[in-house]
Amino acid sequence: MPDGLFDAVLARGAVAGAVSDRAWLQAMLDVEAALARAEAAAGLVPAEDAEAIAAACDAARFDLAALGADAAASGNPVVPLVRALGEAVGAPAARHVHRGATSQDVLDSAAMLVARRALGPLLDDLRGASAAAAALAERHRDTPMAGRTLMQQALPITFGLEAANWLTGLDEGAARLEDVRDRRLAVQLGGAAGTLASLGDRGVDVMGHMARALGLAEPVLPWHTIRTRPAELAGALGEAAGVVAKAARDVTLMAQTEVAEVAEAASGGSSTMPHKRNPVAAISAAACAAQAPGLVATLLAAMAHEHERAAGSWHAEWRPLTELLRSTGSAAAWLRTCLEGLEVDAERMRANLGITDGLLLAERVSTELAGELGRMQAHEAVQRAAQAAASTEGGFAAALAGQPEIRDRIPEERLAELLDPAGYLGSADVFIDRALAAHDAREASA
Amino acid sequence: MPDGLFDAVLARGAVAGAVSDRAWLQAMLDVEAALARAEAAAGLVPAEDAEAIAAACDAARFDLAALGADAAASGNPVVPLVRALGEAVGAPAARHVHRGATSQDVLDSAAMLVARRALGPLLDDLRGASAAAAALAERHRDTPMAGRTLMQQALPITFGLEAANWLTGLDEGAARLEDVRDRRLAVQLGGAAGTLASLGDRGVDVMGHMARALGLAEPVLPWHTIRTRPAELAGALGEAAGVVAKAARDVTLMAQTEVAEVAEAASGGSSTMPHKRNPVAAISAAACAAQAPGLVATLLAAMAHEHERAAGSWHAEWRPLTELLRSTGSAAAWLRTCLEGLEVDAERMRANLGITDGLLLAERVSTELAGELGRMQAHEAVQRAAQAAASTEGGFAAALAGQPEIRDRIPEERLAELLDPAGYLGSADVFIDRALAAHDAREASA
Amino acid sequence: MPDGLFDAVLARGAVAGAVSDRAWLQAMLDVEAALARAEAAAGLVPAEDAEAIAAACDAARFDLAALGADAAASGNPVVPLVRALGEAVGAPAARHVHRGATSQDVLDSAAMLVARRALGPLLDDLRGASAAAAALAERHRDTPMAGRTLMQQALPITFGLEAANWLTGLDEGAARLEDVRDRRLAVQLGGAAGTLASLGDRGVDVMGHMARALGLAEPVLPWHTIRTRPAELAGALGEAAGVVAKAARDVTLMAQTEVAEVAEAASGGSSTMPHKRNPVAAISAAACAAQAPGLVATLLAAMAHEHERAAGSWHAEWRPLTELLRSTGSAAAWLRTCLEGLEVDAERMRANLGITDGLLLAERVSTELAGELGRMQAHEAVQRAAQAAASTEGGFAAALAGQPEIRDRIPEERLAELLDPAGYLGSADVFIDRALAAHDAREASA
Amino acid sequence: MPDGLFDAVLARGAVAGAVSDRAWLQAMLDVEAALARAEAAAGLVPAEDAEAIAAACDAARFDLAALGADAAASGNPVVPLVRALGEAVGAPAARHVHRGATSQDVLDSAAMLVARRALGPLLDDLRGASAAAAALAERHRDTPMAGRTLMQQALPITFGLEAANWLTGLDEGAARLEDVRDRRLAVQLGGAAGTLASLGDRGVDVMGHMARALGLAEPVLPWHTIRTRPAELAGALGEAAGVVAKAARDVTLMAQTEVAEVAEAASGGSSTMPHKRNPVAAISAAACAAQAPGLVATLLAAMAHEHERAAGSWHAEWRPLTELLRSTGSAAAWLRTCLEGLEVDAERMRANLGITDGLLLAERVSTELAGELGRMQAHEAVQRAAQAAASTEGGFAAALAGQPEIRDRIPEERLAELLDPAGYLGSADVFIDRALAAHDAREASA
Repeated sequence: MPDGLFDAVLARGAVAGAVSDRAWLQAMLDVEAALARAEAAAGLVPAEDAEAIAAACDAARFDLAALGADAAASGNPVVPLVRALGEAVGAPAARHVHRGATSQDVLDSAAMLVARRALGPLLDDLRGASAAAAALAERHRDTPMAGRTLMQQALPITFGLEAANWLTGLDEGAARLEDVRDRRLAVQLGGAAGTLASLGDRGVDVMGHMARALGLAEPVLPWHTIRTRPAELAGALGEAAGVVAKAARDVTLMAQTEVAEVAEAASGGSSTMPHKRNPVAAISAAACAAQAPGLVATLLAAMAHEHERAAGSWHAEWRPLTELLRSTGSAAAWLRTCLEGLEVDAERMRANLGITDGLLLAERVSTELAGELGRMQAHEAVQRAAQAAASTEGGFAAALAGQPEIRDRIPEERLAELLDPAGYLGSADVFIDRALAAHDAREASA
Repeated sequence: MPDGLFDAVLARGAVAGAVSDRAWLQAMLDVEAALARAEAAAGLVPAEDAEAIAAACDAARFDLAALGADAAASGNPVVPLVRALGEAVGAPAARHVHRGATSQDVLDSAAMLVARRALGPLLDDLRGASAAAAALAERHRDTPMAGRTLMQQALPITFGLEAANWLTGLDEGAARLEDVRDRRLAVQLGGAAGTLASLGDRGVDVMGHMARALGLAEPVLPWHTIRTRPAELAGALGEAAGVVAKAARDVTLMAQTEVAEVAEAASGGSSTMPHKRNPVAAISAAACAAQAPGLVATLLAAMAHEHERAAGSWHAEWRPLTELLRSTGSAAAWLRTCLEGLEVDAERMRANLGITDGLLLAERVSTELAGELGRMQAHEAVQRAAQAAASTEGGFAAALAGQPEIRDRIPEERLAELLDPAGYLGSADVFIDRALAAHDAREASA
Repeated sequence: MPDGLFDAVLARGAVAGAVSDRAWLQAMLDVEAALARAEAAAGLVPAEDAEAIAAACDAARFDLAALGADAAASGNPVVPLVRALGEAVGAPAARHVHRGATSQDVLDSAAMLVARRALGPLLDDLRGASAAAAALAERHRDTPMAGRTLMQQALPITFGLEAANWLTGLDEGAARLEDVRDRRLAVQLGGAAGTLASLGDRGVDVMGHMARALGLAEPVLPWHTIRTRPAELAGALGEAAGVVAKAARDVTLMAQTEVAEVAEAASGGSSTMPHKRNPVAAISAAACAAQAPGLVATLLAAMAHEHERAAGSWHAEWRPLTELLRSTGSAAAWLRTCLEGLEVDAERMRANLGITDGLLLAERVSTELAGELGRMQAHEAVQRAAQAAASTEGGFAAALAGQPEIRDRIPEERLAELLDPAGYLGSADVFIDRALAAHDAREASA
Repeated sequence: MPDGLFDAVLARGAVAGAVSDRAWLQAMLDVEAALARAEAAAGLVPAEDAEAIAAACDAARFDLAALGADAAASGNPVVPLVRALGEAVGAPAARHVHRGATSQDVLDSAAMLVARRALGPLLDDLRGASAAAAALAERHRDTPMAGRTLMQQALPITFGLEAANWLTGLDEGAARLEDVRDRRLAVQLGGAAGTLASLGDRGVDVMGHMARALGLAEPVLPWHTIRTRPAELAGALGEAAGVVAKAARDVTLMAQTEVAEVAEAASGGSSTMPHKRNPVAAISAAACAAQAPGLVATLLAAMAHEHERAAGSWHAEWRPLTELLRSTGSAAAWLRTCLEGLEVDAERMRANLGITDGLLLAERVSTELAGELGRMQAHEAVQRAAQAAASTEGGFAAALAGQPEIRDRIPEERLAELLDPAGYLGSADVFIDRALAAHDAREASA
């Protein structure tokens, strides 16, 4: 669907179609249809007129570019749309088109519809990424790798735990988006100044019918100038983008030539540089996710609407909201691709874990020894061994055995045990179980 | 408590103390105390040692500036704090200080405590502002004023409805913050690489005890690199700040010399310019709230933590999180001051509503007439009257009566009725009721 | 040119075409053409092959949507473009297409071309707005109005001074953009890793030829990972947007129904609400300008490119750079429309200046009196008069004359003089002269 | 000087003292002193009174906390400062304190002084980092390393070229900051509404004297609501922070355990994990630099000041401007520490360059062969060799020699030459020369 020069990277997945101008147009028409029917239900409009209006509300019948061009005079595309819809409907129903509503009612309600529809593919892709992460967590629960802090090897972990971390983040991000979708996307109907004056005493009634018809929440009162709903949506999208960015960052780091622990299935390769396996999906996910913070800030900064309709802050929301849905959705789609096809080199993980020759376990030896020797002396003995390791035949293990305080207290086979990364994983396995259980519970209740 | 040059404006209310460096220090110590006790409960540390540690965890016993200075070497203040705490505790309990934890465990858990404690006064002030808005909504439900769209008078509303808008926004912002506080602020405990390796098989047990002791949620797994929690907190604070900004903007607009519908009780006046009543509280609220979008963006952009501890993105969170709590809290405190003392000039509201001489009701007359005359002809007749109004003795009312199509169809007293703003308020009253009911329900369940 | 639903508002003016995907495509082709010719000049490519390549570099010959679709595999649109260009050129010249360059060279150089071309209409519109502001400053240098601080009337100014403020801001914003355009938009050519290895010892030579051919600066070295140039462009655009936002904000405030000092020529009106003159241009300018801060933040946050090509941060620049040019250009175009047609109601300005009945001049009376009476006593006497003004027949003037200390020291006609706003304008006129002189100097040197 | 819990990390270097509240207070007092003397020079104030005022303008004489507390009533700290200064000066000079100025004049001018003073240490540290980068570029101009694109090894570069990239970025960032410092930091003096009304016809004269006394530029007219100056400062700081972030990112990547090409002199080590050399300075630099984008956005978003003094947007600048100077200065200080002590492991760089066994040079062989064999056939032959390399005794070199088309056309010793990274560095050396020459020229003109 997207056909721009950069869309293959920045507008990936079904989300792009769901936030297109055509999707916006259909959403506006859906709002006009729901309004007419709600007014019929409230006794304000003859049912057959409402149905005539609803029947005309098909985006394929309208010239999008012409509507866009005509929007210049009034400052928004609803004014020309209402005119065109009236013409499409014809007398006598035309006089009931857009009755009692203002442009912002249509655009705000349409924004909520667009958001809900875009959240479909977006959440699908997030869930796809979650499922892939869950599979990795399960499959690699016993695959040891170096845990790295401040980008330095620190202690052993398992790749399963790393994937469980991603899983939990993705699930939390998705849960927050679902919560916003289910509870906070609401119909907007207020009329010219938020009183629904021209609907007399039927305003609230119409609003309720309309909300139900559109599958949107019914607000306490019109939210045309109270922008908590777009703000919560923005915050949830920003959170989801951040979670994607974390996993993508890890993949690009693990895919480095010198680390080579993972590779993408469809890595962007080079025929003459077969060693080069660019993690294109992770890189693109990172690029898309990087759009979010600034767009969230724009939407939050636009919350100070003036009086009953903002002098600019409302118009300022359209583009960043659309773009935030698109870029976050693209980021999720890329991450899904990345994780679904992730090739994991468990052997290389183990090899990398070995490059410090057991020094990652020094702390463990030290702890064991402390019970025997006192913390300070234990620490010093291990430190001497660590410093001697580089120049000792047999490395750290031999150097440890070379320290009398250690040799006398820890038998050789116990020392070997202590230096086995697989034995120093603490709660890694339990954490994986918990992450998978939480994931399964989410899936079961979905 | 705040004593900086700009703190009177930018760090108003109890929130400032709750996010001070001293508050952070106490929170870190509370985490160390809870850790020791949790390890005692898990059988890893003698109970008396845990109590000895907990007894020493009083910020008043530590030299904050010295700890801060010593933080340079390690890059965070926990390393010197653990050392100082060990010294304060003394043998034999000292060896159990900070057992199995890493610096990030202490700082992340402390951040959650600081957030929860800061949300106390922050929510108090938000609720205070809500209560004031509710009182205004109730008191002014029948006070008509001009509804303004794009900063132009559009249709009549009531000031009560305006206040009900603020009320709903403030309540929604507070509800979101409470939700984050109650469900998403969680203890962090992962040890050096997120496995809790040095706690053997007791890691999850300790984490659970600790969460309960601190009144924080227990996470599925350590969240040291999955930053959904700070992100949700940031998003909720940004939303609350935006709601405050909206109300503050309205107050500054309504307080303009030429509008003069409201004034602040403690307006910053000028002895020689008694006409000048600067809405200092609303202005300061706006200034504080304006900090939020950029700070939220900084926190979202910092979500891409590398591996098991970020190379910068974690450290990058400390200042914006603190500042976001402080500035949003200050914004809420200022708005509370503003709304609690807001002086409303209902007479001036009515006068302003009259300056267009009934033209605000033109649409209403047109609608009434349409039933008689057809939409198009009705519209044209009213338009002629509107254009003639300026040069007609008796203004718009007389000009309407001067149009034969109108005079013949709408009796003079009905015309007068149609031009009465109080009769064209639609669902304003119902909306106020709904906002107040929602507010009462919130309060009742609090 | 723009044909989206929201483009009439958010993509106004010629800037939209200048940043379209087609404009990007042509810019990429211009880079390929310049590269081929530069390599011919450097003796690396036969001149006739270079000309054959250049001849094929016409965007009209390429299928933009197909190129965009093919970009998915490689992660950027240059790879399919080079392939398509090679096919268009045919043997034997095809083998010299894109020689020695990498995709980023083409996209970065194209971005600079797009920026320079978009700055054409953008600066035209900024200059148009400046010219309009200059005309207002000159025409209204003697039109007194209320100066407002914190949105309260404070002291008299002239509308000419207000316009001179806008003028200076617009001129400074334009000057900064011109500086970036003239000195900082540079060609990028580095090859696969920034060494231009495959060009042997001719790399710098080719880079120089290419820069001159494209009218871009020649950098010290390739800037593929040193993003000071996009950052400076972003900062300058953000500044220009902010200046537009300031003027737009003032117009919306002055156009309020209750203030009514200005109106836009093509105000968005309502046939039945002739009093309503929505300042659509100012509102749209504000909405467009509001996009800038978040987009600038995105571009700045993307500066930390990894090694010799970023894993995401480079791709993250394309959309916000394009959007920042478009929205800032649209903002400028809207402000130009707004100011060129601005209708100024000098009478209403004077009337508004009078609504505080001379109290705006209280400070002036006080200053005059202080010389006679001492500062404190003078202040108190004027304050008494100010407080009595509301209830005094004849208002503040009479109330002043009613104070013996004042009456005895300031003759009545001098009092009248002191209360004339036109006499208390300080350096307003000189400031206008300075602003106009600076503007004329800019224009003369352009 | 900084004594907060996080200041060791986030407020490093002399910049912290330069933006402290005390520094702000002294800057305000310097403005008051310069104002008094400028008014003396303009004949408005007796010279001895001006000197009495100037003599009292010493921050050590004032109670900062008390001034801060008193700022609540008026909304800014200038009001209590003027009162306290008057008391400190005593009669008769006291009556000339702050004459004709408004609070914003003092705060805006002080902000410019604070900025200029903070830019001193900030630029010192940036220059220190540049000097260190220049030394690395010179020392390592012949140290080959792997150039990495998308975090994958791509082609050989030298570490000297990498350092030259940093150097050029740092120099450009510094140059931009110097330009803003020298041309754009201007005095602000406008009086209550920007007309300098109470200075009669001497306003411009006083402004000029004041500018010269403070070493600030003289603006065309007061810039109290035209915020191009803070905006340009913000943009330049954001750019400098981004440049620092790039170099810091590279250092953290090169310092990874698996890469190990660089280490910091004072790496945060661990006594029991001697392999772990945390690049604390680079990490802290990254954390500080990450503050910039959001703060720049806040300052840009605050540009839409209302009328003659903003209702919030002015107050909203104080904190982010201070924080942006502090965090960017801290980032520069950390990077200087990082680069000045950077330990470079040239042997490891060469070893890493070898891990793909010459495949990085495949493209070069292919190019050489193309002349003999035609592009397509050459490409295929090399590709076959590349694929065979892993399973060929003797690796890629032997595999190449194993292909008849290659063996027959490229002699063995030429093949060895082609596979030597040092021979495929293109313009790397020239680029280093250019970067160093540009750096020297900057230094010479400083």
